[in-house]
Amino acid sequence: MAVTSAAVLAAGPAPRELRPAFPPPPVTARPIDRDAWIAAFRHVRAETERRAAPLSPEDQQVQSMADASPTKWHRAHTTWFFEQFLLRDHRPGYRIFDERLHYLFNSYYVAAGPRQPRISRGLITRPTAAETAAYRAYVDEAVESLLAEAPPEGLEAVLPILEIGLYHEQQHQELILTDILHAFAQNPLAPAYDAAWRFPAPQPAEGGVVLPGGIDRIGHAGEGFSFDNESPRHDVLILPCRVERALVTNAEWLSFMADGGYARPELWLSDGWIAAQTEGWEAPGYWRREGAAWLTMTLAGLKPVDPDLPVTLISYYEADAYARWAGRDLPTEAEWEVAAREGGLADAFGLVWQWTRSAYSAYPGYRPLPGALGEYNGKFMSNQFVLRGSSVATPAGHARLPYRNFFYPQQRWQFTGLRLAQAGA
Amino acid sequence: MAVTSAAVLAAGPAPRELRPAFPPPPVTARPIDRDAWIAAFRHVRAETERRAAPLSPEDQQVQSMADASPTKWHRAHTTWFFEQFLLRDHRPGYRIFDERLHYLFNSYYVAAGPRQPRISRGLITRPTAAETAAYRAYVDEAVESLLAEAPPEGLEAVLPILEIGLYHEQQHQELILTDILHAFAQNPLAPAYDAAWRFPAPQPAEGGVVLPGGIDRIGHAGEGFSFDNESPRHDVLILPCRVERALVTNAEWLSFMADGGYARPELWLSDGWIAAQTEGWEAPGYWRREGAAWLTMTLAGLKPVDPDLPVTLISYYEADAYARWAGRDLPTEAEWEVAAREGGLADAFGLVWQWTRSAYSAYPGYRPLPGALGEYNGKFMSNQFVLRGSSVATPAGHARLPYRNFFYPQQRWQFTGLRLAQAGA
Amino acid sequence: MAVTSAAVLAAGPAPRELRPAFPPPPVTARPIDRDAWIAAFRHVRAETERRAAPLSPEDQQVQSMADASPTKWHRAHTTWFFEQFLLRDHRPGYRIFDERLHYLFNSYYVAAGPRQPRISRGLITRPTAAETAAYRAYVDEAVESLLAEAPPEGLEAVLPILEIGLYHEQQHQELILTDILHAFAQNPLAPAYDAAWRFPAPQPAEGGVVLPGGIDRIGHAGEGFSFDNESPRHDVLILPCRVERALVTNAEWLSFMADGGYARPELWLSDGWIAAQTEGWEAPGYWRREGAAWLTMTLAGLKPVDPDLPVTLISYYEADAYARWAGRDLPTEAEWEVAAREGGLADAFGLVWQWTRSAYSAYPGYRPLPGALGEYNGKFMSNQFVLRGSSVATPAGHARLPYRNFFYPQQRWQFTGLRLAQAGA
Amino acid sequence: MAVTSAAVLAAGPAPRELRPAFPPPPVTARPIDRDAWIAAFRHVRAETERRAAPLSPEDQQVQSMADASPTKWHRAHTTWFFEQFLLRDHRPGYRIFDERLHYLFNSYYVAAGPRQPRISRGLITRPTAAETAAYRAYVDEAVESLLAEAPPEGLEAVLPILEIGLYHEQQHQELILTDILHAFAQNPLAPAYDAAWRFPAPQPAEGGVVLPGGIDRIGHAGEGFSFDNESPRHDVLILPCRVERALVTNAEWLSFMADGGYARPELWLSDGWIAAQTEGWEAPGYWRREGAAWLTMTLAGLKPVDPDLPVTLISYYEADAYARWAGRDLPTEAEWEVAAREGGLADAFGLVWQWTRSAYSAYPGYRPLPGALGEYNGKFMSNQFVLRGSSVATPAGHARLPYRNFFYPQQRWQFTGLRLAQAGA
Repeated sequence: MAVTSAAVLAAGPAPRELRPAFPPPPVTARPIDRDAWIAAFRHVRAETERRAAPLSPEDQQVQSMADASPTKWHRAHTTWFFEQFLLRDHRPGYRIFDERLHYLFNSYYVAAGPRQPRISRGLITRPTAAETAAYRAYVDEAVESLLAEAPPEGLEAVLPILEIGLYHEQQHQELILTDILHAFAQNPLAPAYDAAWRFPAPQPAEGGVVLPGGIDRIGHAGEGFSFDNESPRHDVLILPCRVERALVTNAEWLSFMADGGYARPELWLSDGWIAAQTEGWEAPGYWRREGAAWLTMTLAGLKPVDPDLPVTLISYYEADAYARWAGRDLPTEAEWEVAAREGGLADAFGLVWQWTRSAYSAYPGYRPLPGALGEYNGKFMSNQFVLRGSSVATPAGHARLPYRNFFYPQQRWQFTGLRLAQAGA
Repeated sequence: MAVTSAAVLAAGPAPRELRPAFPPPPVTARPIDRDAWIAAFRHVRAETERRAAPLSPEDQQVQSMADASPTKWHRAHTTWFFEQFLLRDHRPGYRIFDERLHYLFNSYYVAAGPRQPRISRGLITRPTAAETAAYRAYVDEAVESLLAEAPPEGLEAVLPILEIGLYHEQQHQELILTDILHAFAQNPLAPAYDAAWRFPAPQPAEGGVVLPGGIDRIGHAGEGFSFDNESPRHDVLILPCRVERALVTNAEWLSFMADGGYARPELWLSDGWIAAQTEGWEAPGYWRREGAAWLTMTLAGLKPVDPDLPVTLISYYEADAYARWAGRDLPTEAEWEVAAREGGLADAFGLVWQWTRSAYSAYPGYRPLPGALGEYNGKFMSNQFVLRGSSVATPAGHARLPYRNFFYPQQRWQFTGLRLAQAGA
Repeated sequence: MAVTSAAVLAAGPAPRELRPAFPPPPVTARPIDRDAWIAAFRHVRAETERRAAPLSPEDQQVQSMADASPTKWHRAHTTWFFEQFLLRDHRPGYRIFDERLHYLFNSYYVAAGPRQPRISRGLITRPTAAETAAYRAYVDEAVESLLAEAPPEGLEAVLPILEIGLYHEQQHQELILTDILHAFAQNPLAPAYDAAWRFPAPQPAEGGVVLPGGIDRIGHAGEGFSFDNESPRHDVLILPCRVERALVTNAEWLSFMADGGYARPELWLSDGWIAAQTEGWEAPGYWRREGAAWLTMTLAGLKPVDPDLPVTLISYYEADAYARWAGRDLPTEAEWEVAAREGGLADAFGLVWQWTRSAYSAYPGYRPLPGALGEYNGKFMSNQFVLRGSSVATPAGHARLPYRNFFYPQQRWQFTGLRLAQAGA
Repeated sequence: MAVTSAAVLAAGPAPRELRPAFPPPPVTARPIDRDAWIAAFRHVRAETERRAAPLSPEDQQVQSMADASPTKWHRAHTTWFFEQFLLRDHRPGYRIFDERLHYLFNSYYVAAGPRQPRISRGLITRPTAAETAAYRAYVDEAVESLLAEAPPEGLEAVLPILEIGLYHEQQHQELILTDILHAFAQNPLAPAYDAAWRFPAPQPAEGGVVLPGGIDRIGHAGEGFSFDNESPRHDVLILPCRVERALVTNAEWLSFMADGGYARPELWLSDGWIAAQTEGWEAPGYWRREGAAWLTMTLAGLKPVDPDLPVTLISYYEADAYARWAGRDLPTEAEWEVAAREGGLADAFGLVWQWTRSAYSAYPGYRPLPGALGEYNGKFMSNQFVLRGSSVATPAGHARLPYRNFFYPQQRWQFTGLRLAQAGA
């Protein structure tokens, strides 16, 4: 899986013959390059299927907790997204594949009508995985026809929806991997998603990026894609600090554990301590003790914990406790963005999402998109924390510098890790 | 007493060429008829596969509530039963198919070791349905070889286990249908298990069987198979009463509903009223109102409620409330058994299990089987009520006069119905 | 506290000057002895206040679990009972003390209208204990005036309600003690209700009462008071058995514990084992280990467990497990009643209620009282087990041979114990 | 501005004869004014008793939800705080009043040992309210003796603890009122805490305070008392905005309600919408519809909603939804502090706490106090939002400009309200 490096992020557009199919051109580029958009659409749709391919129909059916969704649901929901927001209104004469699927595959768009309770997604055995493939093919054909045939002015209205649909599907591609890993981790047989899968080695890195402090700017700039929650770009005050170049590793985490990290309430937030006690945390997610060794459940099955890899599958509460134990802080999202922009962070992208100490909230002057798509990001701005970067499960081309990911502080089934920071340094 | 209808119940043993493969000969019959036992084994094992055949791998994966289990689990658990209780100890040189399956497919036998939590059976996507078929084939081959090759004295020890294993698997065959119907009923698409399936028409019946009262005997007698909870056969005092020949129908149930049956607390047991309010009951299970009509989810999909069919998918609480509304009682299990033995009841078998007003408890002097199989029935003797007869989902050859089925009074996903009785009549 | 011995139960009416105020004369006795009824009323009402007297206003306020009620609530609810069922309709010109109390102090009479949720009784700080005393005095005066002044034909209608109100209040007197003991047992300070309180010593007893078997009769007979659930008196078949004369003692229970009684699932009902694990049972209710010794919370505070006393504060599940461990059974309620009637049981009354193995159900032909009072007993006839006898907390004059007490099998905050039986002996 | 006005906040020390007993002198003032400290101590301790005085022993016993505590518990816990953190270590020869109370009245200080589960505080009927008064008197006497007799160097160590103990007790004084109001609001009789109580009228106010933007400073400065979470004082970047002078009123809130405010999911955060649906919110806390009118439960009992008063008893989710409906924002805590410092806000203090849109988090470089007192504020820095100002229930002398209150976004039993802000204005 290709990683979005800082180098790639900094690079300009590649010559056509070398340019990957994704990301597509800016929606404002004229003339509209229909072929490039069709290529991007095919690329993203194919990647979803590529990720689902190793999974049996049974694997694709399971929902192992309320936060996760079946693979099959991801495949159908991303398809519904195009049907609902793009084809229904913008493709003249389009016939809905099956109106009854609307209820099943709407996720959380209240404005789009009632929907299957999230916790019950795993109960829906029909449509089967094969029938879901047919649904995908039907919608793919209609979208491609629309892209090929729509008059230019129609296409202008369509491209922003298409673009968000592609990024949306990529987010679900990431979830396909993290959700099935959670399901497999519940299985005493510890099945492998891909026996040959390996976690990428981190870049060598030492020391920290020193930020001298002052007014800076963060948020989305320029003409490429962004989610609404990355805007408006705005001034922020950076206080002097240092952000570590390296991610925290399993070896360091084992030191934290050996020093009683999971047994010392003074290191923990109150809500975090309750979560840790209630759920019996004594190591990162999916770690299992076997004699003196620690194993961890990976996409390749159960493997020994590799001390050199970045720690992952940790909650915000654990990241926060670790930082307190280390006498450091987590960076704010602004500190992270500025430090990453300066190019000094190792593995800012491609290994693990990095918890920041910033609660997820609106940028000053933020207003969500109109209509149902306004529910995409804005309504989640309470009780969650921002993560920055991207992970090993993030599809190529998806990650960007101002990208704001967010999860609840107790969640720990994503590829989440941390890097430390230090005030005043 | 062998198969389902009253006529069959009265019949003697059929000539060999006509005799169905199930039930097998009595375990005490000598010489041991190896072929008959192999035939019975094949017959039962094949019936399980026949019931699973219309179901996709996704269907076989789902667990739609804690009380239900995935089809795949039923197929594997019944196989584990033979491996655990029969092959492990009685087949020299037998190699366990996969020791790890033991944890996954033990149901509730505490004495047999720890097991997958019941509520999490649906999380196990591997082994797949196809791998489960391989497990079944492996065990089938071993059991058949054992039956063919074991010396007679070894076979004597084996037959009682084999026999209980066959009846056990038949119980799961019934659950395969009721559990998938529950799952399908959760799906807004209302899938059909078998579009051609029809509920059998009830026999014409009027009036009641009058029991004059006096000391009678109930429980298992003779040499055929029985579960331990049907013993010892013992004296009971029957008080004068009348047991209705006919089952209560949907038409009669609609009268109960029209008369406020679900809205009048004075008709209900206190715990039943709480259950009805909490779960929002206003009709039998799986009924859905559509305009002025009632539809119900069946194995053939969503169908109009047929007034002439027996009401089914009702809890004990509903049956009890109906009887109170009708100014009658449910029969005791002893009243039912005596009335059925006298041959007067229509549809005692084969349509719906019939709730009795007898709490499920030990017959006087009852002692469970030794070892893990002692957990089969005895440990459930609190908080449940006895049902008698059998249902449309019960496999041929399984039902018998003294058979005691039992469920919690709030459960209503089996084919459960009722017939009324009247004291002193 | 005087105990209702078998001797007392067997005795006829005492001469007037010796007769205790309670029980009152039969409701059918003519002429109506107004003074005797007024005396009985005063006697019962005073006993409630006597039991509440040692309790502070804070003690009277607390509701320590959903099953228990505040003392103050018991005092007010029993008063409401007379106001609602007796004064409202039968005392011309009676003015309700405060209509708003109706909602607060109705317990479970659905027919009497909506009511304070049971679990929230402890939230009601007003009326205070002192205001509750004023409510009691107001109603007392009205009831006594009614008894003194009503014309004889009016009195005839009133007496059955008065009588059930008195027995009803006595039931709450028992709960006043058991509920406050539960509350005190939650307090690390282990307060004493009455430091001088002592559990009565059991009668010396050996061997068992042998019942030869045959048709016998149980249930209420004669003209005295009974609850509706004790009727109709009816034939039962007693199978040959032996019922132990003595109650099971703490010493015997300690043997059960020492033999792993709480750690061996094979001794337990399935639901019982789940309850024991979930709630962490390892001894009877309120027992606390202190070093090598066991203490238990009593009405006199925390005291060493006395090996000679009957075990108490046990659930049905524990009683059932003990019997299985001992290779015995609990008696049925019919066996208990016949054995007690024959006079052979020691401490049938006055120490601990005795679990029977009979699920609480309707006697054949049972019909509840009409109106709201029909909810008194009948609607609880599922999921509970019958206890017989009476306990140290039962008020004098309340216990009777056919009395049927009932609790859920997991409940263990009453003075509940057991005696064993043996089939066929 | 009602209570702690900006004028008061800005004023220097008053001449002795005019100075109120609270706040006491700075802990660093020399020579130490023992009398002033004793006076402050007496003043705070007396205020607690004054607030408890109208409450019956029953009222003081009740815990109406997990978030609230009994009055009696507040009285005892604040006493324990002095005993635990001040007398135990700093008063030579001090004898603990009753070691067993330590477990009961520790609130959440994990470092101070195990404690009564929060949810079970209402179960503890002993010590009674009267015994609690004796505990208070005992500790009062010891503290006053310590203050009078300790050598100066000992006193220096004691004063910071004493000071935080006084502010701590004042926080519980506020809770005494808000917690009992919650309890009374559960009672259908709607008791009054004080029939003469009135909510103060708001100041007339129009328009908004315009903040031009730029780097400013917030947090505690100078020598007076502050909680650790107000430090360090630090630079913040204020973006141009306008903060409304007036609080949002009930009249305005009724417009929001009339416009479907509680029924339009697009106005709500996702977690807020779930809370509103789950708890059935359709108006602020304690509002009850009576015909066409709205009543609200106040400390004076049930009263008509006064349109001119500030809305209160609202959650963060409601405040946020209101701001979205109004096309505005809530201010950040920095915006609030700067605007209030500039003196332009009406009723910044003394009516209702004002929700800000700032998640409660550490100021840059924040480090908690060492030892158990370090648990006071820091461990709650997740999932909560900051409120600024003070409320009608806040004791005189307690409020200060940089004070940071915090609650979970779903909580609504405090006197919480809001004022609006507008970006860029």
